Amino acid sequence: MDYNGFLATAVEAAKKAGEVIRKGFYETKNVEHKGQVDLVTETDKACEDLIFNHLKKQYPNHKFIGEETTAANGATELTDDPTWIVDPLDGTTNFVHGFPFVCVSIGLTIGKVPTVGVVYNPIMDELFTGIRGKGAFLNGNPIKVSSKDELVNCLLATETGTKRDKATVDATTNRINSLLYKVRSVRMSGSCALNLCGIACGRLDLFYETGYGGPWDVAAGIVIVEEAGGRVFDPSGKDFDISVTRIASSNPLIKESFTEAFQQSE
Amino acid sequence: MDYNGFLATAVEAAKKAGEVIRKGFYETKNVEHKGQVDLVTETDKACEDLIFNHLKKQYPNHKFIGEETTAANGATELTDDPTWIVDPLDGTTNFVHGFPFVCVSIGLTIGKVPTVGVVYNPIMDELFTGIRGKGAFLNGNPIKVSSKDELVNCLLATETGTKRDKATVDATTNRINSLLYKVRSVRMSGSCALNLCGIACGRLDLFYETGYGGPWDVAAGIVIVEEAGGRVFDPSGKDFDISVTRIASSNPLIKESFTEAFQQSE
Repeated sequence: MDYNGFLATAVEAAKKAGEVIRKGFYETKNVEHKGQVDLVTETDKACEDLIFNHLKKQYPNHKFIGEETTAANGATELTDDPTWIVDPLDGTTNFVHGFPFVCVSIGLTIGKVPTVGVVYNPIMDELFTGIRGKGAFLNGNPIKVSSKDELVNCLLATETGTKRDKATVDATTNRINSLLYKVRSVRMSGSCALNLCGIACGRLDLFYETGYGGPWDVAAGIVIVEEAGGRVFDPSGKDFDISVTRIASSNPLIKESFTEAFQQSE
Repeated sequence: MDYNGFLATAVEAAKKAGEVIRKGFYETKNVEHKGQVDLVTETDKACEDLIFNHLKKQYPNHKFIGEETTAANGATELTDDPTWIVDPLDGTTNFVHGFPFVCVSIGLTIGKVPTVGVVYNPIMDELFTGIRGKGAFLNGNPIKVSSKDELVNCLLATETGTKRDKATVDATTNRINSLLYKVRSVRMSGSCALNLCGIACGRLDLFYETGYGGPWDVAAGIVIVEEAGGRVFDPSGKDFDISVTRIASSNPLIKESFTEAFQQSE
């Protein structure tokens, strides 16, 4: 298996898609609401096609799971085959509003294990990469998770998600209420993949999100976090399960305190 | 009054301070916790001295209010004299953690009215500027607020502040709970001045914060938002009062709906 080749091809695809996103990002202000929705859909689809075409040319026998393709055709079962899991545009709300946390996320699983990851923010020109066993990088420089070992010194990232039923909203804000007493502060940036990369490079110390979109939001970030020395787990402290949409991430030193605090917040 | 000269001098000072912040930003990862706190204090003080010295050389008869000077010497009364109000480093928690929302904020009031504003994020190299009556700019390009007129399409920015008593924390999360049903999503970036600039350039549609640090967090941002066509007001809908630490901002179209929603959240 040519992991370096997989990564190089994924980076090429992410940069191409990043160009399309960057162009759309600076155009969204000039279109009306209906047009914005169209622009998102068009940009999402154009980027997914572009990425899949680029990868398929090199790896015609690999499998592919994408957010847009799944929305159109239903879920594809994850198998042991090399499988590219792609979110062509993570942070779509940010994209529409021009808030600079948007990215392309391209992950490759082999034997269901995330093995290669690329997350590219074309607005801030930040390229996060990782290969299982070979480290994680930001624009080519090695990155590592923070060494915070007390919650009170930790910066926590989370998101409010998209569901607005009372049970979900109450659970979301009750959890933030409970955790606010324990951590230094909270950030909400609007991109799951970039939150994982924030943990990987130590900008953020704690991250959890429940009810995110699907495996395309996390497949690349998981490799990058783990190769930066971090942990990915279910917020309850159990093992992470890519088939459910609950994720947490931190450095190893703070994981236990974090999952305890999370449990107390439920 | 040479407003263009005031702005040019403030931009020079902001860029100089920005260099110091950028250097510290990439060093914080390499110092221990005690050292980080020292680094913040040192960077804050070094930047405030640098900015005040630069401004005083040009304008020896102006008055000066700075976050660091106020912390050391107590509050200086705001008079009708030309007064520079400076936050040398807004987003100190972000600075310590390496989260890229940090900035220098330099505002000039004349007759107590914010008249010139400079907010510079040296990590993202974004320079927001405004002169009363002469428009607002991001890196030299004119900016304007969004045209959103329905809450459901709005991106709301707020912060959790630094107080962790039960009354404050409950008020903070109850308000977010109530507003979540009405807006598209919530962002927390950790910099009051940059939230105001986010409103000014239309990245964000709604912003409120209660209990922020002081006038240095808002003096520059107010000019920039207002010159971008936005409004600055008390979250209750009353006029903004720089002597209390409650602020809200939005475009004019959504202001009334926003203040109604805010009142219902209390």
